[in-house]
Amino acid sequence: MKNYSKISISEEVRIELHDKLGLTGAEVSINTLPAGTSVPFVHAHKLNEEIYAILNGEGSVEIDGEKIAIKSGDWLRISPSAKRQFFAAHDKAIKYICIQVKADSLIGYTQSDAIF
Amino acid sequence: MKNYSKISISEEVRIELHDKLGLTGAEVSINTLPAGTSVPFVHAHKLNEEIYAILNGEGSVEIDGEKIAIKSGDWLRISPSAKRQFFAAHDKAIKYICIQVKADSLIGYTQSDAIF
Repeated sequence: MKNYSKISISEEVRIELHDKLGLTGAEVSINTLPAGTSVPFVHAHKLNEEIYAILNGEGSVEIDGEKIAIKSGDWLRISPSAKRQFFAAHDKAIKYICIQVKADSLIGYTQSDAIF
Repeated sequence: MKNYSKISISEEVRIELHDKLGLTGAEVSINTLPAGTSVPFVHAHKLNEEIYAILNGEGSVEIDGEKIAIKSGDWLRISPSAKRQFFAAHDKAIKYICIQVKADSLIGYTQSDAIF
């Protein structure tokens, strides 16, 4: 495998990067929900922690029955077993990144994993 | 551990989310390099694949001696062993997300890891 890969993202509704970039430790998707819409299902995960970054707009996420307001600049971690569903605001779209990683897979990071 | 955690990000130069969100499968940082500056060192990693998303601005990254132009909307995967250094453009700042994950740690994702 080449030592790096790069792509430029345009304005599609959903893009998945795992195959495009050859990722081996995560799946990353960039998603847009138009105003008044939601992800059409509730889901949880077997092994994967999810990390969400809200890039633009606002909306909410329902996690195990609790409704949480979200807006541009917010970041969330969601445990694998939590049941989740994302919603755009009724009058605003929401654009977000979703990062899937295997829970408890990280060993070291930053100083403890870096080589200078 | 609670089934989720959430924070709102302001405009600091560098924020690290691992401890703030209780991440277990990744470290995520949000970084800004002012115009004309760079990360002050070259580094590689022992175990971690890095995934970069350019949020705003432009600049370049040198990977194993190869200079690659980067701008808002670009995403990169960099192998653990690659030697890397990020630079802002001489006249523009660059803001980016860096995601560290253990290379080869992802087992399933999306359909193969989801529970409906």
